[in-house]
Amino acid sequence: MPAYTDHRDEHLRRLRRIEGQVRGLQRMVDEDVYCIDVLTQVSAATRALQSFALELLSEHMSGCVADAARAGTAEGEAKVQEATDAIARLVRS
Amino acid sequence: MPAYTDHRDEHLRRLRRIEGQVRGLQRMVDEDVYCIDVLTQVSAATRALQSFALELLSEHMSGCVADAARAGTAEGEAKVQEATDAIARLVRS
Amino acid sequence: MPAYTDHRDEHLRRLRRIEGQVRGLQRMVDEDVYCIDVLTQVSAATRALQSFALELLSEHMSGCVADAARAGTAEGEAKVQEATDAIARLVRS
Amino acid sequence: MPAYTDHRDEHLRRLRRIEGQVRGLQRMVDEDVYCIDVLTQVSAATRALQSFALELLSEHMSGCVADAARAGTAEGEAKVQEATDAIARLVRS
Repeated sequence: MPAYTDHRDEHLRRLRRIEGQVRGLQRMVDEDVYCIDVLTQVSAATRALQSFALELLSEHMSGCVADAARAGTAEGEAKVQEATDAIARLVRS
Repeated sequence: MPAYTDHRDEHLRRLRRIEGQVRGLQRMVDEDVYCIDVLTQVSAATRALQSFALELLSEHMSGCVADAARAGTAEGEAKVQEATDAIARLVRS
Repeated sequence: MPAYTDHRDEHLRRLRRIEGQVRGLQRMVDEDVYCIDVLTQVSAATRALQSFALELLSEHMSGCVADAARAGTAEGEAKVQEATDAIARLVRS
Repeated sequence: MPAYTDHRDEHLRRLRRIEGQVRGLQRMVDEDVYCIDVLTQVSAATRALQSFALELLSEHMSGCVADAARAGTAEGEAKVQEATDAIARLVRS
């Protein structure tokens, strides 16, 4: 079971809030709200998604480190590499 | 009327797709999908939001430059400053 | 002459400070400073580069808007497209 | 001794290359090179700094996971938290 399962309700609440932000953006575009104000909302939604990702990553790394402690080195290395790749995608997105 | 009104349908389609990605994230969390796969989807949604922002900004700048050409310098300067501030928020988000 | 020429000395001062930060990073690596502290300095240097880019872009857009006002629409459009492409590279870097 | 010590020469080479890029930027500003071309170089230097950071982080996490495996849980947790904070600074810079 993924490490984030304990926090599932909190994650779902966060994601529903982000979904609400994206629906808000649709309303803004539909009502011809001034472009710069739409962009401000896009930045807010982007930051919310990144915070969610960092939260998830933090939990994954706690779990990952714990698992790697119990498992052998090879599996631990593979998990670290996988996490590092995910971080690179976040940093570059 | 904002410069982006011409492309409103296209913008709304994009935003609905992003809303779908965020709902997909909820489903993934709900079904205990592996954390790294969730993170990959978060990166995809973040990039989609940024592409939308860049598209909007591009249209705004085309309109902004055109308006500044017709209006006087002071208004033009104010619009450039406003756009630059929005860009700074995007770069830092 | 580029729009940023007026601020050349200020830009050079900023860039020399960033060069100093990068040399500081070499010293840290050379002296086996703790990895997390090195990363904190990398983040500081990255932010300094982005601030420089945003400053340069802001000046370019002021000049760009002014030029586009004097020139015809086609040249103005090309300049806006060019600036937007540069912004996209910044947002994604 | 930090985990990155094995790769010190490679890190120093990378950082000297980045220092060269920043000095190149000074030359460009000094010679009034077109602003957009300067911005392209800033994006390249920023990406190079981020790649260096990701490399360093990857090594740190390999070391961190290995250390946490040998040490107790509390120290492991503290190291993961520290790494996550550094990642957050990278993602937001």
